[in-house]
Amino acid sequence: MSTSSPLALPFPNIPAIPGITPRIARARYKEWDRCDLTFITMDEGTSVAGVLTKSACTSSEVDWCREHLVQGKARALVVSAGNANAFTGYRGRQAVEAVTAKVAAHLGCPLAQVFVSSTGVIGVPLPIDKAEAGLEAAFAVQPCSWEEAAATIMTTDTFTKGAIATAIVGGQTVTLAGIIKGSGMIAPDMATMLGYIFTDAAIAPAFLQEMLSAATQKTFNCITVDSDTSTSDTVLAFATGKASHAPLTSFDDAGADAFQAALSDLCWQLAHLVVRDGEGATKFITVAVTGATSDSSAHKVAMSIANSPLVKTAIAGGDANWGRVVMAVGKAGEPADRDRLSISFGATLVAKDGLVVPDYDEAPVTAHINGDMVDIGVDLGLGDGQATVWTCDLTHGYISINADYRS
Amino acid sequence: MSTSSPLALPFPNIPAIPGITPRIARARYKEWDRCDLTFITMDEGTSVAGVLTKSACTSSEVDWCREHLVQGKARALVVSAGNANAFTGYRGRQAVEAVTAKVAAHLGCPLAQVFVSSTGVIGVPLPIDKAEAGLEAAFAVQPCSWEEAAATIMTTDTFTKGAIATAIVGGQTVTLAGIIKGSGMIAPDMATMLGYIFTDAAIAPAFLQEMLSAATQKTFNCITVDSDTSTSDTVLAFATGKASHAPLTSFDDAGADAFQAALSDLCWQLAHLVVRDGEGATKFITVAVTGATSDSSAHKVAMSIANSPLVKTAIAGGDANWGRVVMAVGKAGEPADRDRLSISFGATLVAKDGLVVPDYDEAPVTAHINGDMVDIGVDLGLGDGQATVWTCDLTHGYISINADYRS
Repeated sequence: MSTSSPLALPFPNIPAIPGITPRIARARYKEWDRCDLTFITMDEGTSVAGVLTKSACTSSEVDWCREHLVQGKARALVVSAGNANAFTGYRGRQAVEAVTAKVAAHLGCPLAQVFVSSTGVIGVPLPIDKAEAGLEAAFAVQPCSWEEAAATIMTTDTFTKGAIATAIVGGQTVTLAGIIKGSGMIAPDMATMLGYIFTDAAIAPAFLQEMLSAATQKTFNCITVDSDTSTSDTVLAFATGKASHAPLTSFDDAGADAFQAALSDLCWQLAHLVVRDGEGATKFITVAVTGATSDSSAHKVAMSIANSPLVKTAIAGGDANWGRVVMAVGKAGEPADRDRLSISFGATLVAKDGLVVPDYDEAPVTAHINGDMVDIGVDLGLGDGQATVWTCDLTHGYISINADYRS
Repeated sequence: MSTSSPLALPFPNIPAIPGITPRIARARYKEWDRCDLTFITMDEGTSVAGVLTKSACTSSEVDWCREHLVQGKARALVVSAGNANAFTGYRGRQAVEAVTAKVAAHLGCPLAQVFVSSTGVIGVPLPIDKAEAGLEAAFAVQPCSWEEAAATIMTTDTFTKGAIATAIVGGQTVTLAGIIKGSGMIAPDMATMLGYIFTDAAIAPAFLQEMLSAATQKTFNCITVDSDTSTSDTVLAFATGKASHAPLTSFDDAGADAFQAALSDLCWQLAHLVVRDGEGATKFITVAVTGATSDSSAHKVAMSIANSPLVKTAIAGGDANWGRVVMAVGKAGEPADRDRLSISFGATLVAKDGLVVPDYDEAPVTAHINGDMVDIGVDLGLGDGQATVWTCDLTHGYISINADYRS
């Protein structure tokens, strides 16, 4: 894309992760001259875990990952950008089988240890000849940087997105690195966009899955750009075990809590980067709901606010329109009592106990809403349930991008 | 508003309804010089029924109507435009009590037979002095036309909306007339916007409620503009009984089926008018889902498509993007089998059994999508469940209207 999101962050300095080797190549899935095939290999013994879209119309790649995550080991990941290979029936499946077979033969590993993702246009089978030629090229080139890999998985994204975290496990510092893509078709109750996490930590597959699922619940599943859930959403985590600590198998192991904290932090960073690149976004919005009857009720209320076109357009227009927040609370279908509801923008309480605060100071509210980080706080006054979700504003940019993007 | 929706229809020629007298006046709820108070009286013996928003944060007017619909009789309706009197706590309630008391004293009728609605800005109590002065003016003026009443209840609407239907009951032709307002904050699973239906038919209140609820289920609850549900949504139906047929009390009575058909037709017309005035709308979209496991499942899938920003922006851009329809089916959380799914635009089947139809003719699809009435058909191939819902496209106009409208 031409211009970066005004909310873009610079790509971090990600070191090599022992046991992980990224490469990129041109498969030319579309009429473009950019790298669009990412090929990442892992050394033997790498654990894998993943979370996948809850869509009922998944891509063949998602189906493949779901089938093979259960055995818990990975040797390679292939990501194709420009073609989602979704809604392509048996021909989509054939393409996945061709790609994984070619990689398994090249590496001499089981088919089940090759993972695949595709992103782009729906409905066109991934062209097998282009994928195979792209893989041949990738097999032959030198490894690339993390930022090059992050650039190669992008579609409508406007900036490369990566994050890093560390944890001390068994006296050893282990590194977690992640890259992610996503900008539109980002929605609640999903199991996310395309994101990949790599670490040199040693972790049993089942426990890696447990930790990734826990992190996802509070990060990727708490963001929304446009309430639309992709057919291809995938996050995979790979742990090579190159660090010399004793493998983690449960939270009883020393260092497991530290690793979970680092993994959750990494997922949090990656999820926020997707919101920062939300299509047409000019403001990053945090919606924090407290006082709900349960955490899950708070999450639904927060998502109702974060997905409301009227709330999102008000923020885009610099309007601290708490009436629209009331509306979004009311429509959420969750317990709420109009006369106990309080709402704040930034640090200013604007409505309390079901009434506007009569003499609240508009100046700090206006200053807050005109910035690019907007905090909306809602207290339902009913219980201890709480949740925080993140979204962006809804602008002319979203319409321009999506009314023009060709199918 | 300045320009009418390109989908506007002319106001129909609605005759006087025996027993119903509409009047309008200036309460000046905002800084404008237009009529904004509608005062409609009904002769003694008029039955009333209503459907109200399911929001958890209802306005005082909605609360009042809910309390008093149970007694089933009405003598007056007061509609205030420019102020929703929602989220105004005890002061909102005081305003409703002042308005209804003044009308009840004027007519010499019970308080419970005065119904009220307000629409406009949330969070500002309805000013009692302005409401009372407006009522004084309304008491003194000559009756107005239906189109004048329809104009007076409008807020962001761009055209006056009314509809008419007739039925033969007991050998008598009875007339049903309706006026409605609504343009944004129009959403699924609601019990609608502000709409008022008047008939000279004689109908017991409980049976009028039964028929109105049935009609709403297939009409008002099947439209969406922006997935946002209002705090004030109200539809009230008034039956004066001035027609000389024997009162209808159940579907066993001759003419009841004919009346239900006419009432449903009237609600269908009114609901479509709201979609035609959807904020920023340039195309009217019909989403018909068949082959679902149940009618309610079909309704959820259809609403998922109709509320998808990516589907709505694609239609705005003249793009028959069936991939986005697949996405919206997939995220609906309802039973769907990717490999049995078929999708059509207009009369052209573009995808069948989970694959694009390889040689479908693009020309009729392009012609259809470039018109202002767009039909999307989805067959899930699973069962007999079906549903049809109506929506509009999502355009720059929606953003402009809602990023600029002041709270």
